[in-house]
Amino acid sequence: MRYKRSERIVYMTHYLMSHPNKLIPLTHFVKKFKQAKSSISEDIHIVRETLQKEKLGTVITTAGASGGVTYRPTMSKEEAEAVINEVIGLLQEKERLLPGGYLFLSDLMGNPELLNKVGRLIATIYMDEELDAIVTIATKGISLANSVANILNLPVVVIRKDNKVTEGSTVSINYVSGSSRKIETMVLSKRTLQENSNVLIVDDFMRAGGSINGVMNLMNEFKAHVKGVSVLVESKEVKQRLIEDYTSLVRLSDVDEYNQDFKVEQGNVLSKFS
Amino acid sequence: MRYKRSERIVYMTHYLMSHPNKLIPLTHFVKKFKQAKSSISEDIHIVRETLQKEKLGTVITTAGASGGVTYRPTMSKEEAEAVINEVIGLLQEKERLLPGGYLFLSDLMGNPELLNKVGRLIATIYMDEELDAIVTIATKGISLANSVANILNLPVVVIRKDNKVTEGSTVSINYVSGSSRKIETMVLSKRTLQENSNVLIVDDFMRAGGSINGVMNLMNEFKAHVKGVSVLVESKEVKQRLIEDYTSLVRLSDVDEYNQDFKVEQGNVLSKFS
Repeated sequence: MRYKRSERIVYMTHYLMSHPNKLIPLTHFVKKFKQAKSSISEDIHIVRETLQKEKLGTVITTAGASGGVTYRPTMSKEEAEAVINEVIGLLQEKERLLPGGYLFLSDLMGNPELLNKVGRLIATIYMDEELDAIVTIATKGISLANSVANILNLPVVVIRKDNKVTEGSTVSINYVSGSSRKIETMVLSKRTLQENSNVLIVDDFMRAGGSINGVMNLMNEFKAHVKGVSVLVESKEVKQRLIEDYTSLVRLSDVDEYNQDFKVEQGNVLSKFS
Repeated sequence: MRYKRSERIVYMTHYLMSHPNKLIPLTHFVKKFKQAKSSISEDIHIVRETLQKEKLGTVITTAGASGGVTYRPTMSKEEAEAVINEVIGLLQEKERLLPGGYLFLSDLMGNPELLNKVGRLIATIYMDEELDAIVTIATKGISLANSVANILNLPVVVIRKDNKVTEGSTVSINYVSGSSRKIETMVLSKRTLQENSNVLIVDDFMRAGGSINGVMNLMNEFKAHVKGVSVLVESKEVKQRLIEDYTSLVRLSDVDEYNQDFKVEQGNVLSKFS
């Protein structure tokens, strides 16, 4: 079966999008289409130029015998700002404020279109780190971690606050919740994370950072290297933060539970975009 | 800026893949490319024929003033069978067997490439149902539900076994766990699911079906219509199953905890593919 250029281009775009952040050998397409390498290279050139012109990511080609093509679905600063403003718009509904200064986020964490955008945003700023896994805390962090992992083509490792038989042998640590000062437990299945992994920690909400500090301690037990911490919402209502180096999409402040009032503004993540 | 046909085709393929199961008006592309509708229709014809020939899904075009194009990333029966066999291969490692006849699944539930395939498989068989949401149970069902929801372009609704302040007001029910006969609680945030929704229930593992039966009862409280139940693994080691109408990718049987032995075979889901 012969393929026309237009058909090859549809297939390649689909294939690259289905395998983000993965080196696809040129030979894959050469075999598939029974075409000379030079024609395949021209096809890829068209795909690359279009995706880059439209700011839909970058396509990296590597030369040589083991050469190939990698699609990196990065996001531009302009789009990142639009996504952050969309999140701010959604969070500004006053009914979201919950007792204790929390925000209701469950609907956002179940919205696939928004999650894909937020995931691509976070993935963009950590794409140059040599990561082995995305680490998150059950329950609401999971969807966000999935959306980042999808783009970076990495496994998701879920830390739980309870020990279940379905986790097999586990490592657990105790930590002090930053806001309530209660002692809580975190549990991670031994088999889900190899020692010496490079990890990115992702979660939906950070206040004092007690949970994330707990994750850091648990990562120590696995000899893991924490290459970054990224949250959707950080709360400014904290005297002393336990975590200093992190990125946040938005920042919650001026919480007035009595009048159901609060402010949401841009977090620090845009400073990571050039 | 003028776009060549090859560039339009790259952009359209990308756009359709980024918006699965969503009607994109033709006018979207007409405006974007400043091209006559007839040219755009020819572009779409090329994209459609290629995706369909390569069994990467179907592209549905609707005529008329409100006409447009919808990409449905369906999976063929052959690919579905390959995915099921891949899951069987992964599950057959003997160390997966856990006390109580459970299987260790956490690594699969954190593997984005596998999840995307399993999600597309499950989404394919429920694509003709008019669904409003994918419902799952924390913790391990969430990633699977996300992968299905991504394809169907639907929100994910997460039922929890504990009541957290971050859920806002909730509805809860008690249910009897099918295997342990213990009474447990399930909680769902009121705001995450509208009354009278059509839902698909997705979970990673089903034994007697006690949890899923609990989900059904909770769905009753929300006046929701359960249009399907789909699990990754069902365990055959059950005298009486509480749920009768469901699909499973694989089936676990002949569990011998003493000798760490068990069998994994194809579930019933392939019968839904024609």
